[in-house]
Amino acid sequence: MTMPAFVQFLDLLGVAVFAISGALVASRKEMDLIGFGLMASLAGIGGGTLRDLLLDRPVFWISEPAFVMVCLAVAVVVYFTAHVLQRRLTVLLWFDAIGLGAYAVLGAHLALRSGASELVAIVMGIMTATFGGLARDVVSQEQPLILRREVYATCAMAGASVYVLLVSLGVPPVAASTAGFVAGFSLRALGIVQKLSLPTYKARPGRPHDDPPPAS
Amino acid sequence: MTMPAFVQFLDLLGVAVFAISGALVASRKEMDLIGFGLMASLAGIGGGTLRDLLLDRPVFWISEPAFVMVCLAVAVVVYFTAHVLQRRLTVLLWFDAIGLGAYAVLGAHLALRSGASELVAIVMGIMTATFGGLARDVVSQEQPLILRREVYATCAMAGASVYVLLVSLGVPPVAASTAGFVAGFSLRALGIVQKLSLPTYKARPGRPHDDPPPAS
Amino acid sequence: MTMPAFVQFLDLLGVAVFAISGALVASRKEMDLIGFGLMASLAGIGGGTLRDLLLDRPVFWISEPAFVMVCLAVAVVVYFTAHVLQRRLTVLLWFDAIGLGAYAVLGAHLALRSGASELVAIVMGIMTATFGGLARDVVSQEQPLILRREVYATCAMAGASVYVLLVSLGVPPVAASTAGFVAGFSLRALGIVQKLSLPTYKARPGRPHDDPPPAS
Repeated sequence: MTMPAFVQFLDLLGVAVFAISGALVASRKEMDLIGFGLMASLAGIGGGTLRDLLLDRPVFWISEPAFVMVCLAVAVVVYFTAHVLQRRLTVLLWFDAIGLGAYAVLGAHLALRSGASELVAIVMGIMTATFGGLARDVVSQEQPLILRREVYATCAMAGASVYVLLVSLGVPPVAASTAGFVAGFSLRALGIVQKLSLPTYKARPGRPHDDPPPAS
Repeated sequence: MTMPAFVQFLDLLGVAVFAISGALVASRKEMDLIGFGLMASLAGIGGGTLRDLLLDRPVFWISEPAFVMVCLAVAVVVYFTAHVLQRRLTVLLWFDAIGLGAYAVLGAHLALRSGASELVAIVMGIMTATFGGLARDVVSQEQPLILRREVYATCAMAGASVYVLLVSLGVPPVAASTAGFVAGFSLRALGIVQKLSLPTYKARPGRPHDDPPPAS
Repeated sequence: MTMPAFVQFLDLLGVAVFAISGALVASRKEMDLIGFGLMASLAGIGGGTLRDLLLDRPVFWISEPAFVMVCLAVAVVVYFTAHVLQRRLTVLLWFDAIGLGAYAVLGAHLALRSGASELVAIVMGIMTATFGGLARDVVSQEQPLILRREVYATCAMAGASVYVLLVSLGVPPVAASTAGFVAGFSLRALGIVQKLSLPTYKARPGRPHDDPPPAS
């Protein structure tokens, strides 16, 4: 498979699985069908839209209606089938994890191709992998996944870093992308299944947790 | 009236009524005068700004200060007069509805003119009609209108779809715009007055509403 | 000091102090190290990113990795040292105040240089000074500083206005920038120390505070 074709595959995969996660949030909030379409689109194309704006590329779904069609089709299918799922939140987390892995690699790849440095490419991978889900959670007033204890942004960083590292070592892009995706997704899987988390900052014992919220 | 003049009229109308809705939210939150200006600007120019960024057009209010002036004038007027309103939330909903209708048509029109497909144009209409109000509600920590039960994004879709359909049938743009605006606004009026809503997704009876929130 | 050098200094200063405020929010939320990096970057480069998108300039941190490096370095330092602070929220407010002053002037300067009118330049100053902090607070589910009682957006307006006024009077840009920064920062300092606030909108006595939230 050539890299441009693989990029397009990753883009479509990321859009589809993030769209599913968005539609599942719509089902948790008991929205109507149009709300499903909106949440699926927001989650599905949000991250890639931010990426294209930052890199000053044409926004990917404007000239290629297939992406929006995928989001809307996903919305309709989920609207009529979500009730067969035993645990919608768990399914949502897994689809979100696939999207996280795909978009981390894709964001880093497109940033590198735009001439950005390795560090900026990794940051772009993290941002575009997390933004669609973040917008989905902020708009629907769910707790952002990014604020939860188990590894999340870390997985996007791992995926983007593996990709950037392998490419800089001369590994062919498709192989490097696949490795990056597997790295990011596997780490996130550990986060979901094992509640894997990094050590979090703790206020020192004997000190107050933090100053009280200011009167305002 | 020529279409460019009509477009400018719709833009100014949309900005003014969304600005009013933003200033009314500021009054509900008891902000100071600067807060009124900020919320009026955010709601007034938010949707059009997103539209112009996505379509890679120059952001409309940067080169034409009249739009910002309208927002600030609205903020001052609302600051000193909002107390005469019996029910500020109701007034807010109606002005928001006018903006929703105007921006749905306008977003679709500008997307078509940029060469986007019909489907993308409708999505653009929905996004630009709902984004200013969404930003307004997220920033001020109000429940987004888009999450409420009665039709909302649906109305933007109806307005944009009617416009796109009529234009593709050869109807002159000004007539098609007017019809689109009337369609979107009327549907939203039914939503406000009759609490019209589409059927929402329901978890199947006998199943839990959803899995419990995860421990985190 | 030449203006371009001074602009770069203000940009780096703004990024660094906003990054500190973002990392301190991460510490209040007890995030892990990656969360610190993400919040530092979001707060640090958020405002300038919005500014560059609106003015159609290349996004400043894409081609210059030093800005992202500063954010990440800040994140690491704050992760290991925040516990020595007695009152993290107070420290956060002061760093946020420095950033507010620097970015208000910087946003106005770059808008003027892009050919925008004085009014638009002041609005751009307000937006870019407040956006990074706003994104930081929305994502981390803190109450946005902009919603608090004491002067906040007002300070950005004051700083940007002083800069724009002095430049239009022929004052050299570096002097005008310094005066603008001092004006914005001093006013915000009064807000923090004296709880200085503008009169807020009040629902009229004898009337209900506002209509009840709608059943939905």
